[in-house]
Amino acid sequence: MADGGANVVDPYSTNIETHLVVFTPSGIRGRFEAGTPILDAARSLGVDIDSVCGGRGICGRCQVNLVEGKFAKHGLTSSSDSLSPFAEAEDKFRERRGLKVGRRLSCHATLEADAVIDVPSSSQVHKQVIVKDLDDRKIEMDPAIRLHYVTVQEPDMHNPTGDFERLCMALEQQWGLTGLECDLRTLQSLQKALRKGEWSVTVAVHRELRITAIWSGFHSAAYGLAVDVGSTTIAMHLCDLSTGNVLATSGMMNPQIRFGEDLMSRVSYVMMNPGGEEVLTKIVRDGINKLIKNVTTSAGIDPMDVLNAVFVGNPIMHHLLLGIDPTELGGAPFALTTNTGLTVWATELDLDSNPDGRVYFLPCIAGHVGADTTAVILSEAPHLQEKVTLIVDVGTNAELVLGNNQRMLTASSPTGPAFEGAQIACGQRAAPGAIERVRIDPNTLKSRFKVIGCDLWSDEPGFKEEISAFGVTGICGSGIIEALAEMYLAGILTTDGVIDGSQVDSNPYIVPEGRTFAFVMHENAESPIKVYQTDVRAIQLAKAALHAGAKLLMDRFGVETVDRILLTGAFGSHIDIKYAMILGMIPDCDLEEVKAIGNAAGVGARIALLNQNARDEAEELIRQVEKIETAIEPGFQQYFIDAMALPHKTEKYENLSKEVTLPTPRVSGGENNLEGARRRRRRRQ
Amino acid sequence: MADGGANVVDPYSTNIETHLVVFTPSGIRGRFEAGTPILDAARSLGVDIDSVCGGRGICGRCQVNLVEGKFAKHGLTSSSDSLSPFAEAEDKFRERRGLKVGRRLSCHATLEADAVIDVPSSSQVHKQVIVKDLDDRKIEMDPAIRLHYVTVQEPDMHNPTGDFERLCMALEQQWGLTGLECDLRTLQSLQKALRKGEWSVTVAVHRELRITAIWSGFHSAAYGLAVDVGSTTIAMHLCDLSTGNVLATSGMMNPQIRFGEDLMSRVSYVMMNPGGEEVLTKIVRDGINKLIKNVTTSAGIDPMDVLNAVFVGNPIMHHLLLGIDPTELGGAPFALTTNTGLTVWATELDLDSNPDGRVYFLPCIAGHVGADTTAVILSEAPHLQEKVTLIVDVGTNAELVLGNNQRMLTASSPTGPAFEGAQIACGQRAAPGAIERVRIDPNTLKSRFKVIGCDLWSDEPGFKEEISAFGVTGICGSGIIEALAEMYLAGILTTDGVIDGSQVDSNPYIVPEGRTFAFVMHENAESPIKVYQTDVRAIQLAKAALHAGAKLLMDRFGVETVDRILLTGAFGSHIDIKYAMILGMIPDCDLEEVKAIGNAAGVGARIALLNQNARDEAEELIRQVEKIETAIEPGFQQYFIDAMALPHKTEKYENLSKEVTLPTPRVSGGENNLEGARRRRRRRQ
Repeated sequence: MADGGANVVDPYSTNIETHLVVFTPSGIRGRFEAGTPILDAARSLGVDIDSVCGGRGICGRCQVNLVEGKFAKHGLTSSSDSLSPFAEAEDKFRERRGLKVGRRLSCHATLEADAVIDVPSSSQVHKQVIVKDLDDRKIEMDPAIRLHYVTVQEPDMHNPTGDFERLCMALEQQWGLTGLECDLRTLQSLQKALRKGEWSVTVAVHRELRITAIWSGFHSAAYGLAVDVGSTTIAMHLCDLSTGNVLATSGMMNPQIRFGEDLMSRVSYVMMNPGGEEVLTKIVRDGINKLIKNVTTSAGIDPMDVLNAVFVGNPIMHHLLLGIDPTELGGAPFALTTNTGLTVWATELDLDSNPDGRVYFLPCIAGHVGADTTAVILSEAPHLQEKVTLIVDVGTNAELVLGNNQRMLTASSPTGPAFEGAQIACGQRAAPGAIERVRIDPNTLKSRFKVIGCDLWSDEPGFKEEISAFGVTGICGSGIIEALAEMYLAGILTTDGVIDGSQVDSNPYIVPEGRTFAFVMHENAESPIKVYQTDVRAIQLAKAALHAGAKLLMDRFGVETVDRILLTGAFGSHIDIKYAMILGMIPDCDLEEVKAIGNAAGVGARIALLNQNARDEAEELIRQVEKIETAIEPGFQQYFIDAMALPHKTEKYENLSKEVTLPTPRVSGGENNLEGARRRRRRRQ
Repeated sequence: MADGGANVVDPYSTNIETHLVVFTPSGIRGRFEAGTPILDAARSLGVDIDSVCGGRGICGRCQVNLVEGKFAKHGLTSSSDSLSPFAEAEDKFRERRGLKVGRRLSCHATLEADAVIDVPSSSQVHKQVIVKDLDDRKIEMDPAIRLHYVTVQEPDMHNPTGDFERLCMALEQQWGLTGLECDLRTLQSLQKALRKGEWSVTVAVHRELRITAIWSGFHSAAYGLAVDVGSTTIAMHLCDLSTGNVLATSGMMNPQIRFGEDLMSRVSYVMMNPGGEEVLTKIVRDGINKLIKNVTTSAGIDPMDVLNAVFVGNPIMHHLLLGIDPTELGGAPFALTTNTGLTVWATELDLDSNPDGRVYFLPCIAGHVGADTTAVILSEAPHLQEKVTLIVDVGTNAELVLGNNQRMLTASSPTGPAFEGAQIACGQRAAPGAIERVRIDPNTLKSRFKVIGCDLWSDEPGFKEEISAFGVTGICGSGIIEALAEMYLAGILTTDGVIDGSQVDSNPYIVPEGRTFAFVMHENAESPIKVYQTDVRAIQLAKAALHAGAKLLMDRFGVETVDRILLTGAFGSHIDIKYAMILGMIPDCDLEEVKAIGNAAGVGARIALLNQNARDEAEELIRQVEKIETAIEPGFQQYFIDAMALPHKTEKYENLSKEVTLPTPRVSGGENNLEGARRRRRRRQ
């Protein structure tokens, strides 16, 4: 931008012809001399208009619309004569890049009479962008990396200074940036860039502190990555740092899975194999590099233009990504290396993006509560609401967040891997062929089900053909929840969680299994799919741990009930909330206020990528969050025992069970939503 | 240290028994309760006592002496009972490391009666160390890297925080350091170091901002490098960052010499060979790594304990070391990449020392005036004196600094390489066999000389035998200066610089050479060594450039004469000042005030290594220094022409020449000094 040339004119001065300009939607107004560029007028009034090229008619970020008509409220008439005719730069820009009808480049259109100027959202620096599809969560753009086009004074023997010093002078004069430092690689390419660009260059500035990249001439491409590194899957979004748009998404199984499905077996691998952490670090970084290749190829962009990234993950993934041995997280007292947010160089992580790109890690909260939970908090912002929210992220551990704008608590509950289909006889990871939906006829006890990879119920025509490629291979985590809840509703399970053997002789689906009984869900598979008494016990333990953790937090917070429950993570998205409540996994809550929120950690990572203040906010918040360690809480054990019963008895659950056991199968609205979320999730991977 | 436990006691309180303690040499005094550790008393009074271990009796840095006797001035008697008996920790320390008689560890010796305590210089944090042998220049120790031993709270599930956060807490409580950041490699080794050290670690902190290294337990080794990277030679000092002592010194020819003796031919190499700058960068860094190996091996220390370095060099060496293409420095307007001081990681320069060690580059001043000149200014501190000082560093260019505490100017004069023996028919680099001292008998015109590598004059017995390994190979820079001056004094040269041919038929040492004449200095070499008319012209041009540059600065400064002239660099150390004045190389000055100061750039590098504030001082100063570019100064040309005459006529020179042309050869005191400086220099290499 020009160096603040436009000042608001003193309206009482009669010597100078001035015109009124009103900017919408802000309503900010001021009087300026005829001939003042609209961008200068906007800047001097503090109206938020973007510009990378600094008013040179190159970047096209400062587009505005002239609004014509009489505006009694503002006491002015705005007409096509209010602005100067199209400037040469505007014509050139229109030829080269196109310009919508009515649009002007505010850096070249000048004020010639009273005018009303609309600044479209896309022209605002701090525009609002939607970062969350489910509830249209918006965030203000304020990325940590910004590009600035500057024209630098040529060197002069009469006044010798370094090229870097002249660059800094230009950045101060043209962009108000002071005291900048510079990465060595940028310094190494500085002189060539300046001369190739004929003394005009674009620089990337990180957090208004340090120049991290330089290009000769005008450069407008700046991208960022939001990466959620889970123990099972890694998901990456490539975002445009100017619009906030997601340009490409890619996901993969975490390649560390070959060292163990669950995190603790990976920690064991490290403990038993000296240097094993380096192997695990390399393999996950390699995986991330594959995703970088995927998203940059898919979006058709240069990986060198990836200038920023935000990583979130559980503490063990967080440590391994950073090349930190996670052994300490494998046993009490589960000490994190750090619970502060960290910024490192892309090159320090061996990433195949710009080596001087900065990678930000959101802070972990405690030994079991990671940066992914921090990201979930950023996404859902329970700390900004009066309602008391419980957020549940179920994996091998359940991470729990409880709180509101007064107080925030977190804990991790040792659910074990039962919810992920492990420790279940016919259990399996969510994959094609796994049963994920179950209905049991309370009269015949015959099961109907759906498997992942097929939209038909098992009793619908064509089911067999559609699943022929993979068959019915097992039950996934959400499937086992439904199976147990339906078994309970059909009277197969007692409230103590015992498979009732009274019909063993009369019903083909109840079969003896040692001293206990099993329920046959599907007999036509290669090996029949049954629910055993041990499976019920495993789920009972897991759900009791989850429930007890939530109760403990509520007890500490001093509430009997919560206003809102959010289920996040893969499991949380796939589970039918009603069944979770029937089993007593989560505390009492109005069913309307229980929601699956999909991959909130990924959303939180995007928020931290697009808005630098969100990082500081998260770090500050994490310092204040009360960290509850269930393992050493005296009350936890009693809550745990109390929560073993199935279902947990309350009137609400009684009503709920009636509502759910409708005689005919149906696809509820809620289920539709979850399916939608799941599809979206699959597309991303 | 203990967390500020000792406070000065209110002397009017009668309930508590207190004793007076007086610290010498500072004279600071205070009253403390009986049993107060002396270190705590000192700290609370602001007495400067060192400690790395924080009062644990490990490091031995806090040693003091009890001074016994009656001190009427202080109104006290100090006796052997003034301090507690030897503590166990002191006994252990004495057994392990030894303790001089009378010395106590002030962290464990407690005050039991009035006492006078002497803090020896070696126990002061900010002790004065001698950094310059020639005039005992002292500097206060305040290195950029300091070690701190801390005991960190163990992790606790009741209050989960990261290990790094607990380390920071300990550093704040025990050392008053706040807001520290941490290098990734340190973070990666943090947890293991804490546990191996049983929660006691030593950290290195850079400029009170960032932790750059960590060791389990107590670690007291911290070293730094002061490196002067010249175009011909590289010299490295390894310093102990706690005592300031030089532990080892090593030097080498700059391995870039194979790409050209002078800098411009190296720049030409880069211009003509794409990627040539990378070759030159690698080769000089490899050379520096050899020196690192030399000095660390010689001192018997671990290169991983080298935590800091300061590099100085001319602009082209500065750029090449940093991996910056020096092409822009090869032609007008000679733009530097930067004239700011830079701190980079050792790993960014591929150094074989601690990868997270920091390397500081003193700022360059202008395209021809480098960080070596900045270091010379730091060493000689002309900006702190009232006397107007001219500093001359002669190489291919002569860097000139003129100024005092009011104003500082610099310039570079294009002397060309004649002073280095180039462009001289029989010229050569200073190396064994090169003539460096010359005396001519004014009657016979027969020369006597000395060559490098032999202490005998050429007419002394045994000379031939001593030089048989290399012979008489040519004339080096200081030799040609003496030759010309002696030729003038012997009447062989006219004041216009013409070799007088009037004796061509009568004297065997004057021979015709085309239309001019030559002077035969030595005829017994394989090829006779002669001074040609073109040689005289080359030296005339060089000395005129040097003199004109000095005059230009004096003109700008507004002085007719300077108070002091300092000659630095190899040439400045080797030259006989009187002959330089006879030739008119430097302006008029009292001969007593003209000194060769040896490798002042290396001293400046050591100062910046040992005192971090010197870096900031240099950066601030360099911003204010007036940079004069001789090439575009209208007055320069006239000064240049005026300075061509030989010798430059003044009464002083008349006197001087008389004084010098004593009939018999002698070794003057001044020459002795220079020889001494030269020997010292040779030992370092």
